[in-house]
Amino acid sequence: MKRPNLYWLLALVPVSVVLRILAQDLAVFIISAVAIVPLAGLIGRGTDQLALHAGPRIGGLLNATFGNVTELIIAVFLVVRDEIPVVKASLTGSILGNLLLVLGLSFLAGGIRHREQTFNAQAAGVHASSLMLAVIGLFMPALFVLTTGRHDLIQREVVSGAVAGILILMYAAALVFFMVTHEHLFRAPEENERPAWPVRTALLVLVAATALVALESELLVGALEPALRDLGISKFFVGLILIPIVGNAAEHGSAVFFALRNKVDATLEIAIGSSVQVALFVAPALVFISLIVGHPMDFVFTTFELAAVALATVIVALISLDGRSNWLEGAQLIGAYAIMAISFLFVRTV
Amino acid sequence: MKRPNLYWLLALVPVSVVLRILAQDLAVFIISAVAIVPLAGLIGRGTDQLALHAGPRIGGLLNATFGNVTELIIAVFLVVRDEIPVVKASLTGSILGNLLLVLGLSFLAGGIRHREQTFNAQAAGVHASSLMLAVIGLFMPALFVLTTGRHDLIQREVVSGAVAGILILMYAAALVFFMVTHEHLFRAPEENERPAWPVRTALLVLVAATALVALESELLVGALEPALRDLGISKFFVGLILIPIVGNAAEHGSAVFFALRNKVDATLEIAIGSSVQVALFVAPALVFISLIVGHPMDFVFTTFELAAVALATVIVALISLDGRSNWLEGAQLIGAYAIMAISFLFVRTV
Amino acid sequence: MKRPNLYWLLALVPVSVVLRILAQDLAVFIISAVAIVPLAGLIGRGTDQLALHAGPRIGGLLNATFGNVTELIIAVFLVVRDEIPVVKASLTGSILGNLLLVLGLSFLAGGIRHREQTFNAQAAGVHASSLMLAVIGLFMPALFVLTTGRHDLIQREVVSGAVAGILILMYAAALVFFMVTHEHLFRAPEENERPAWPVRTALLVLVAATALVALESELLVGALEPALRDLGISKFFVGLILIPIVGNAAEHGSAVFFALRNKVDATLEIAIGSSVQVALFVAPALVFISLIVGHPMDFVFTTFELAAVALATVIVALISLDGRSNWLEGAQLIGAYAIMAISFLFVRTV
Repeated sequence: MKRPNLYWLLALVPVSVVLRILAQDLAVFIISAVAIVPLAGLIGRGTDQLALHAGPRIGGLLNATFGNVTELIIAVFLVVRDEIPVVKASLTGSILGNLLLVLGLSFLAGGIRHREQTFNAQAAGVHASSLMLAVIGLFMPALFVLTTGRHDLIQREVVSGAVAGILILMYAAALVFFMVTHEHLFRAPEENERPAWPVRTALLVLVAATALVALESELLVGALEPALRDLGISKFFVGLILIPIVGNAAEHGSAVFFALRNKVDATLEIAIGSSVQVALFVAPALVFISLIVGHPMDFVFTTFELAAVALATVIVALISLDGRSNWLEGAQLIGAYAIMAISFLFVRTV
Repeated sequence: MKRPNLYWLLALVPVSVVLRILAQDLAVFIISAVAIVPLAGLIGRGTDQLALHAGPRIGGLLNATFGNVTELIIAVFLVVRDEIPVVKASLTGSILGNLLLVLGLSFLAGGIRHREQTFNAQAAGVHASSLMLAVIGLFMPALFVLTTGRHDLIQREVVSGAVAGILILMYAAALVFFMVTHEHLFRAPEENERPAWPVRTALLVLVAATALVALESELLVGALEPALRDLGISKFFVGLILIPIVGNAAEHGSAVFFALRNKVDATLEIAIGSSVQVALFVAPALVFISLIVGHPMDFVFTTFELAAVALATVIVALISLDGRSNWLEGAQLIGAYAIMAISFLFVRTV
Repeated sequence: MKRPNLYWLLALVPVSVVLRILAQDLAVFIISAVAIVPLAGLIGRGTDQLALHAGPRIGGLLNATFGNVTELIIAVFLVVRDEIPVVKASLTGSILGNLLLVLGLSFLAGGIRHREQTFNAQAAGVHASSLMLAVIGLFMPALFVLTTGRHDLIQREVVSGAVAGILILMYAAALVFFMVTHEHLFRAPEENERPAWPVRTALLVLVAATALVALESELLVGALEPALRDLGISKFFVGLILIPIVGNAAEHGSAVFFALRNKVDATLEIAIGSSVQVALFVAPALVFISLIVGHPMDFVFTTFELAAVALATVIVALISLDGRSNWLEGAQLIGAYAIMAISFLFVRTV
């Protein structure tokens, strides 16, 4: 079984630039979105290759840091244009997409082929408590804002910054746990995989792909406002559903691919691990990055977003803590995602 | 140990008709409620007998479809009279009653007699994730309505219908899982139970009892408004507590009976399985039935109902996922039910 | 390894009285708070000694009844001064402090020394469902008040009293379970620990320390209002964070100490058991005590408090149900506590 090659989509990069010059907003929006898919895939491949050269520990750190770099870049461009609610929606959507859609598709596909699959329940447990910690980090500042009538903006920023700082600390702690103190529990069987690219090529690809993602993100975000006017869908929906799918499509493919090859631990690492990374690292980091950029983003998400992330966390914990998966569990996760996507469709208050 | 025979209560059927003619609303309300108990029992017995003739797979499907037919009939009559909030309350109450009261009484009675009982933890896990899916299906449309100030009724209906459709699909998926693809995991030990009734008798009883349930439901619902004026309790309370107890009393008896005989898997199938059926099949089906009847019911429940179902799901998951039960767990479930019932008692805003 | 001796802090008792006479409110507030720490420790030691004389069953009952007597005394003095919101905050804070801070520090310290520790998962399960029951008991009356526009105070008191009564019943049921019907599951290995004090000394210490705690509580509560004016922090924060730390410091030390000695079952008993006791016994008892005192306290907590207790319960359940702990789980619990404490810091609406 071969994974589909998406690199021909790279041809869309120059197309998107030409369209931008022609001022075709809707076309720019769609083409730049699709062009990000193979670029995100290249970033992932470049990181993997570098990681193979660097050895498991540094390699793990590389993956843990650059795993969601595409989302981060898109988010930064959104922050620069002061589209803070769309940033938050895209972070929420990235968590939901990974937890429900990617994991669901993987369990469904893997479960149909292998009937019942097993994975490291202890790793699933650490991921579940990390996600729950993120849920607490999302709820508390929101409750602070919702329940205290009077509060000044400074307080809101202080609470946001402090919570974001604690979450990043917790992300670092989880990395130390997985890679240093309890590495023996999670060590994958040696595969003797050799790097296919020399270090130089890997670095070059990584830099070039990142730069192009930045270019396409700028095009995508710039065309957002006029394109949506034409399409008649809300920014909230774009942030929650479309941007995360674009940014994660390559990862999504890998997760399903590993599930089909009965390597569910790798699937979980991509799907849940990536959600944890967004919740404990990317989202809090944006609180600080947004301060530097001059469009401060607090850590107060909407009730809708809070509820969706909390419910997704609980159903994933229920389904993954026994260390076994089957196609029904996959179908249920996809069902949960579909219910949320439909309910988000008409929300326009962002 | 013999199960108590409730068939003498069938004598109340003609009594309720006479009282209706005499226009004694309060008496009609009470007598028709009690008369439904043995009729629901007959429907259950008829379905079981048919299932024995049909073999395990079709039999399971029969039970999965007709298991909550009494609730469904009462709900349809309530929809016809446009008592939508009472329908929703009765659906919520049916879920809560099965999850907390029936399971609680069974664990308590079984645990006192057998100290510690065990059951199939994997089946409990599938039920728990199905319930959690139902919770997501209940929360999302409600959040849509609560958080979006402006939204038109069409959007509300579209979201309700789509969510209801997904839940019914998920119910079908769970049936396929339990009865086709993973049937080996849940196969009960052969008991060589022979049908006591011929197919014809079973069918006849089923049809007659269903018709009489329809008659009594019509009487019950018709007397609801005047009777409550006399009794001084709210419709909400009747829907949440009284109707579900009437519709499920026969089932309740069976669940406790099985627990006493140390067949906790059968107890779980009745108690949790029945809740899953109401949440993923009966309630969503009513969204579509109500459209046909011309009194459309959306899938937006009250905050109270959402919270109660979510909390019940979490405590049942906590208690059942280890595959063991004891009397304290039963007492705690009953305690949770009592707390909810008392808090519901004074709610009048429906 | 020796536990630090805090008894020299008893010297602060006379100091606090002198300061009271000198009307130094802020100093009285701080000194009386610190003086409670060793007194609470003496109450704990006296109870332990009595329990050793009384045998395991009566001894367990003693610990289960007097385990949070310090919090109870402080709470009663707060009720007398009609500081009901501070009472509720201190109850919430005691639950959160035990569940997150004490358990977190214990898991962290124990996990660093012992890499991975194990404990009785079944006891953790009973604690988790007891906590979940408490969460239901906290949510339902609050939802009743939040969702029903019109309701009279009598109804609010009836619901509060009924829920409080059920919770106390459930606490009694859990005691019967742990000490009578399923005692064999939780029996600690015999240690042949001999009482160090004769019965008389233990009783005397218990009575004297309790009386002094009452004195210091009176001083603390009396200085609350003027001291806070000077300090610029809210009563809510004092109730949630400071009072529980003062009342539980001695217990906190013991919990960490047991974890370091790899006796995590004893740690859990102190940390989670104590939270269960506050939630199912101390808080409901205060509903009735407050009626006697004449400043009725209902059982309606703020949204903030509800959310914090519910989230803490879920993360503790996730972390403890597998019967294993490590330093990361400890760090995550402390992280959750820090997030809550920071968000509470600016809340002033109590």
